[in-house]
This record gives sequence, structure tokens and C-alpha cells, in this order.
Amino acid sequence: MKINGDRLQKSMEEMARIGATPRGGVNRLTLTDEDREARDLFSQWAIEAGLSLTIDEMGNMFARREGENKDALPLVTGSHLDSVPNGGRFDGALGVLAALEIVRSMNEQGLATRHPVEIVNWTNEEGTRFPPSMLGSGVFAGAFKRNFAYEVRDLNGKRFIDELERIGYRGELPCRPRPFGGYLELHVEQGPALITEGAQIGIVEGIRGLTWLRVTMKGVRDHAGPTPMHMRKDALVGAARTITAIRDIPSKIGSDLVTTVGEITVSPNAINVIPERVTFSVDFRHRDESILKRTYDAVMKAAEYAAKQEGLELEVENLGSSTPIAFEAGVTETIENACEELGYTHMRLWSAAGHDARYAADLCPTAMIFAPSVNGKSHAEDELTNWEDVTRSCEVLGGALISLADRPQSFLHKEREIENGQN
Amino acid sequence: MKINGDRLQKSMEEMARIGATPRGGVNRLTLTDEDREARDLFSQWAIEAGLSLTIDEMGNMFARREGENKDALPLVTGSHLDSVPNGGRFDGALGVLAALEIVRSMNEQGLATRHPVEIVNWTNEEGTRFPPSMLGSGVFAGAFKRNFAYEVRDLNGKRFIDELERIGYRGELPCRPRPFGGYLELHVEQGPALITEGAQIGIVEGIRGLTWLRVTMKGVRDHAGPTPMHMRKDALVGAARTITAIRDIPSKIGSDLVTTVGEITVSPNAINVIPERVTFSVDFRHRDESILKRTYDAVMKAAEYAAKQEGLELEVENLGSSTPIAFEAGVTETIENACEELGYTHMRLWSAAGHDARYAADLCPTAMIFAPSVNGKSHAEDELTNWEDVTRSCEVLGGALISLADRPQSFLHKEREIENGQN
Repeated sequence: MKINGDRLQKSMEEMARIGATPRGGVNRLTLTDEDREARDLFSQWAIEAGLSLTIDEMGNMFARREGENKDALPLVTGSHLDSVPNGGRFDGALGVLAALEIVRSMNEQGLATRHPVEIVNWTNEEGTRFPPSMLGSGVFAGAFKRNFAYEVRDLNGKRFIDELERIGYRGELPCRPRPFGGYLELHVEQGPALITEGAQIGIVEGIRGLTWLRVTMKGVRDHAGPTPMHMRKDALVGAARTITAIRDIPSKIGSDLVTTVGEITVSPNAINVIPERVTFSVDFRHRDESILKRTYDAVMKAAEYAAKQEGLELEVENLGSSTPIAFEAGVTETIENACEELGYTHMRLWSAAGHDARYAADLCPTAMIFAPSVNGKSHAEDELTNWEDVTRSCEVLGGALISLADRPQSFLHKEREIENGQN
Repeated sequence: MKINGDRLQKSMEEMARIGATPRGGVNRLTLTDEDREARDLFSQWAIEAGLSLTIDEMGNMFARREGENKDALPLVTGSHLDSVPNGGRFDGALGVLAALEIVRSMNEQGLATRHPVEIVNWTNEEGTRFPPSMLGSGVFAGAFKRNFAYEVRDLNGKRFIDELERIGYRGELPCRPRPFGGYLELHVEQGPALITEGAQIGIVEGIRGLTWLRVTMKGVRDHAGPTPMHMRKDALVGAARTITAIRDIPSKIGSDLVTTVGEITVSPNAINVIPERVTFSVDFRHRDESILKRTYDAVMKAAEYAAKQEGLELEVENLGSSTPIAFEAGVTETIENACEELGYTHMRLWSAAGHDARYAADLCPTAMIFAPSVNGKSHAEDELTNWEDVTRSCEVLGGALISLADRPQSFLHKEREIENGQN
């Protein structure tokens, strides 16, 4: 379908002003004032586009355009408007605003679909402020209990529920599985594959599994001067040995495996005091569950060895994990057809980043579309997707969405039964 | 000489209430409200003991008891009342309050000395809030410029001079070298040597040299999922490799060498973001300057190798260093004689921790006395020196101090000329 690329660019730019950072990124952590502002702007635009807006008790926002058959299941598309600290302005916002642009263009073109179309803005996709990530879609899909999410606290001790209420986005609608006809999510790739391969569109066949751990090592706090090396129990040395080992695990297990230690806290963190306690995160991702299991074992072995070497107490907490998931072949084919019709080059790939589509896939036929990320950069202020690629990816999303939304109900569900629906 | 151990214990306990932590330590960072309270209490006690108090423009406090010969150079003794975060209650306070107890006992016993005796409380010995450490004695001895010290900022951006004025301890007296007859400092050992060897008193022959570095590594911030391992420039991995290497340097260079990484800051420090920038401290100490030089080279080599391996930018800043210093034989012999007269077991050793005596030794004949630290622990809430050892060490300090304070001026200066005096 034809969409208005200039208008989409303008919407993206206007949204990027909320929480804008000096170096071109955005600071729009979930349930902050900036998140509220972004939600307010989306609400305003959705209502101006004639959509009916509902908000559930997790703050997930659904903006609905009716279909010809009101009882048909909605085709849902969208993403998230929150960001990591000093993140990029395409990550998340593209999926929401491209969907909005498609609805605006459908309105202008008087285009009706058999199924209703809903645009979703999921709460707390990033999870940096309130871990784990994808909490809004996770509760929606039944992966987490609502009350678990409500009690999650940020580093300042503030609860999710209190912040949700504070910004005025705790809705009435219960947050639980309801039947979707299908789910499509457009997102920036956040990696270098499309750019490296020279493809304009990524057709995402699945999402790699992910494990998040929190490792704590406890040694003995002491003065950095008079304590002989052989009497030390230095928690930071134990952590450093483990971090080094974790970096080297993928070269032993598999090239597609990625392992990251992104976060570390040292106590007391003083130049002349031997560190007593160190806590660090571990993040690893792969499409194959047996590789994830082997990686977990390798991380544990490295941590245990380092702790023993340095005489430290060791504690490993599982912060959450998601199993790998393969998307629906019928949906990826629909995206492929849209690319072909538009004449855009494309490639199939697996996402290494988590997305709300992970949980939507538990409920209905799902797939994702990737737009290229310049230099493969993301979660950074200089994250960039060229405007031509923004337009192309929006066109592909529109083509695939309308194609799915016009099919008979039976087609959409030939491969899957909604088990948890309330219809 | 005879001192009152119970009274000294009571003074120590009263001082330890200022900034007391739940687990028995003290939080009395320099130029905080707690530091002010400790200074106020010391002032009150000094005045009650008939001493005349002067404060210099760095906040160093001198409480003077006149000698029979008013023109004789003062024998100076003392230490510091500030602490590291969640530090111990003996570190520093012992040296100041033992000196006060000696003066109280001298008063009671009607004991006069040829030379005046001064008790000093040096400002900012610890340096954790306003690095470098020993800033008060350092400016006094001419190692740092006063205005350099005034401009040092803490982590919240507050300047030393503003905080000094805020707590009301910026004195009138210029802070510059003036002639001392001698300097004696009693301190807890902060290491395990005395306990291990079963000695009651440590006679400190010198202070090891110390180097403090700040290493910064800069890589590329990126998403922890889609960025392949071979394309990463992970600053935390570079730091971890360097920290591991630094831990292992002493086993290659020399057993008395100690190396510590106590402080680390990671940016952006998020679980799913590859670390872009890591800054960490390095602290190493030895009595031999050539070993310090070799250690510096080894640290640089390790950091350069790790940075190259991970593709990082590297920056190393020298935060300050002090050269090793040997104390005066005449003074350590005086301490040894006091131990023998009192019948206390003793051993000679070098301090691995920095002390204000380091700078005093630039000005006059100097040595230190160590009291045993249980388990060798220090800079920790469970730092402990048994009360019998507190009493013993105070007696030795008193004996040595009075012996020195009764000698003719010529004796004290037979080995050294005061170069920077103003007299």
C-alpha cells in the first residue's frame, strides 16, 4: 500500500523530542514523566485518527480501527514507546508510529478491512528500569502474574504500580490473554546483518532464547595497603575472572551465541579498600535451547571456579529467561510476498533482541519485520535507520497487515487454537 | 609513664558514637557534619585539658601544651578523626585520643617537659571523599599547593574549600611548614603482621611508597543481543582482563608488593547494553621505588594489551603517588626503649598504609607506633584493637614522647636541618 513517508518522518521526529538527549537519542524510561508525555501524544494522534483507545491495568494501550466484520478477531500491530537510558529514537517508536501512519493512510484512502486493526503500545518493553523486560506483553500473555509486575521496584525503590498510577496510565481493562487474529511488529534490527548483507527488509523467523542472571560474589573487605595478597578475598577479582571467562564462552560453544556482562555494582567501591561484594549481570542468547543450557553450565562453572580461587561466597539468581520461539510460516510468507510486490530486497533472520512479539506469539500467528540499523547500532544515542528504510519498512508492514486483515478468520487460525481467550 | 586506660577507652567510645554505623563502625567522611562533630568534641576536650588550640587554613587542628622552654620546638603527635565510608573506629582516632590521654595524665601527675607538646588532628587523611589522601599534612609539608586542595571536588561536585567553610573549620593560621622538634604517630596496624607474629607493639621503620592510577577504557555501546561477539568493543571485558592481570602482578614481581583495584564505574551499566566506558582505580604499594616503577610498567602493559585485544581506547591518569620513606633511627630507638622499659613485646615493620607521618617525616625526625589489629582488618566496620593493646600502645607513645620532649634541642636536630621553617 501507499503510505506518506514524510508524515511518518515528522511523527518520528516529534516523538523523538520527548526525552531528547543532546546527542540525538532519547531518555524515555518506562513510567517516567517522559513516558507519560509519549503516551499522551500517541493517545492524541490515535483519537485524531478516529481510533478507539483502551488501556489495560498494566498500562498497555490499544487503539482500534473497526473492521467490516466486527466480530472478527483483530489484527494487532505495534511495539513500545519506552527506551533504555540514552537510547535511540527508532527502537520501539518506529513500530508504533508506522502502524499509526498505515491507519492514517487507510483512512485517507477509504480502505476497509474485514478484521479490525489494533495498534498497541506495550508497557515496559525495555525492562532496564523495571526488570524483566517485556513486562506489559508478558503479563498480557500470561507469562507473568500481574501482581508480580506491580511489585517490581526500580533502583530507587519505587514500585511499578505506584509509578504506573502516578503517570495516570493504570487502565480499567484486565490484562489477560484475549484472542488476536494475528500480530505483526515492525522494529529496527539493532544488529548489523541487514546492512552487512545489503538487504532492505528483514523477515524475522523467530526470536532467540534469552537468559538473564545476577551473580553476587562476597569476599572480605579490608585495607588495600597492609593486607598481603595471599590473605585477600577480593570480590572484584573473582568477578573479573568470571567476566573474562564469560566473554570467551561463545568461541567454545557456538558462533551465534552472544554473552554479555552489562551491569556491575561494587561495594564499598573505594580506591583503597579491597572490594567486599560485587554483583553483576549476565545476558546470553541463542536460538537453540540446548545451547542455552550448555552456556548456563559454562557460566556457573566459570563463576564457581573464580569464587573458589579467590575464596568467595557465590550466589547466582535467575532473573528470567525466555525460550527461543519460531514464528508462523504463514505470516513470514505474507511479509515476503509484500516485499516482492514492493520490489524490496529482503533476507530471513532470527532476532537476537527480545521483543513483545515473543509473547504475542504465544497467543496468535505472529512474525516481525526488521528495518536496517546503520552500523548495526542500537541502545545508543547514535542509533540510526535511514528515512528511505523507514518508509520501505512501513510499506511492507502495511502490505502484510492489510493482506492478513482481509483474510477469512479460518485462515488465520488454521495453524493454532487460542487456548486462553475469552472472546 | 602511667596513663588511665579506662578514661582512654571511654574517650574512644564517646568519639565512636559520632557517625556510628549499625555494625559498630563509623561513617565520618572528611568535612561532613560528622567530621565537624568529632572536631567539636576534640576541641572541647583539648580546652578542658588546658591546651591552646589553633586551626590552620586547611582545617588542621593543633592543641598545644607549653614546655619549660617556650622557644624549644614542639614535639608533635596525633593522627586524624576522619574515616572511610563505613570504616573502623580505631583508625585515626586512636592516635589523637591517646595523645590527649597522655596530656591529661601529664597534667594530673604535674609532669613538665622541656619542649612543648602539640596534639594534631590532620584534615582529610583518608582521601576517599577528597582524593588524594593526607591532604592536610601534605599541604602543611609543602607536597601540595593549598589552592590545589581547595579546588578538589567530591563525587557530588562539592569543593573542599566550600565544605571546609561550611563546617566552620577554615582557620586563620597559614598552612605551611613550620619547625617541629619531632613527630610521633600512634595508629592501628591495619594488617595482620603483629597478630601473626604475636608482638604487642609495632615499631614502624618507614612507609611504603604508593601509586594511585585511574584507568579509563572506552569501547562501543551497543545492544547485547544482535551484536556478534567478533564485532564488539566491550569496555568491561577490557577492564576485567586488566584487573585479573593486576591481581597476578605481585606473584611475578615481589611478595611484599600489594596491588588493588577497589573502585570501578561502568557506563551505561545496563543489563542488556554492551558497556561503553569503564573507569577503575589501581593502588599499589612497596617499600622499594624500583619495584614501584616495575609495577607501573606491568600495569600499563596489561592495560594496553587488554585494550588492544578488545579494540578499546585507553587513558591512564596518575592520581598521585608517594615515594617510600624510611623513618629516623633515633626515633625508632626511642620507641624501642619505651617498649623495653614497659616490658612489651615488639617488632619492627614497614607500614603499607599511608599516614600523615609520611609528610611529617619531610619536616622533622619522625616515627610511628602500631597497635595490633585483630584479624588484620581495617577500613571495615569490624576493625578491632583490644583495649589492653590500646592501653599498651598509649603507654609506649607516652614514654617515647616524654623521652623526646625532655631532650636538648640539639639532640633532636642532630640528624636533620629544618629547611622550610619560619621561626
